[in-house]
Amino acid sequence: MNLSINGQSQVPPGFRFHPTEEELLHYYLRKKVAYEKIDLDVIREVDLNKLEPWDIQEKCRIGSTPQNDWYFFSHKDKKYPTGTRTNRATAAGFWKATGRDKIIYSGCRRIGLRKTLVFYKGRAPHGLKSDWIMHEYRLDDNNQEPNMSGK
Amino acid sequence: MNLSINGQSQVPPGFRFHPTEEELLHYYLRKKVAYEKIDLDVIREVDLNKLEPWDIQEKCRIGSTPQNDWYFFSHKDKKYPTGTRTNRATAAGFWKATGRDKIIYSGCRRIGLRKTLVFYKGRAPHGLKSDWIMHEYRLDDNNQEPNMSGK
Repeated sequence: MNLSINGQSQVPPGFRFHPTEEELLHYYLRKKVAYEKIDLDVIREVDLNKLEPWDIQEKCRIGSTPQNDWYFFSHKDKKYPTGTRTNRATAAGFWKATGRDKIIYSGCRRIGLRKTLVFYKGRAPHGLKSDWIMHEYRLDDNNQEPNMSGK
Repeated sequence: MNLSINGQSQVPPGFRFHPTEEELLHYYLRKKVAYEKIDLDVIREVDLNKLEPWDIQEKCRIGSTPQNDWYFFSHKDKKYPTGTRTNRATAAGFWKATGRDKIIYSGCRRIGLRKTLVFYKGRAPHGLKSDWIMHEYRLDDNNQEPNMSGK
């Protein structure tokens, strides 16, 4: 069960990828973390530390429709080998968390968290705030390392 | 190339059917009229004269997401065997055109028309206007008979 042409996943005309947060976590992120096959896998795997926000658009295009949101998987990079802090720097700037994490529910059951981040050009603690927003989703399982994000 | 489980078309999680009018006409209606195969064919064929608007919801459900629009194909039924007028009556009421037909373009090229209809309960010329709206799409080809509609 896979919709593809020449190995490329294809979305039939008229379909748009507008997942709910529950679908993102419960289906896509959970399968990704477990290395399970995803039918019509439109979420690309990227290295967020090597990709500037303005390069994500081209890389994470789904079909030919104009998009305001881009979806991708990325593995977290540790800031220091022995620590738990995440390295969120790119060549041109860095992602900085803003506000509180939001709890994601499936029905009444808590399944994960959403962190909101803003991109700053330059180097911390300085840096120029931009309009780029990223939502980082984490599962509540023990699988804490891989994460998935959508602008 | 067909995404199906037990012969039933399946939409992967996160995908919603939000076609543009150009996609409806250029891809779905054109293929339907030509009896061509449609990948992931989520548009059901119905008999509009035998179906009340409130029965369409159940019949034309796509996946499990809440819908405000339903899509279907229906063949036109003539009011009189020798005439060109369309029979738009059901057991409980009738569909009545409102406003002007809208021209549908693909880029700059005209490809078809959209007629807007309202459902009235009862029998013409009486009948009680309802909130049910239908858009009837027609191709500009010589294939004038089959049509497709979405509420």
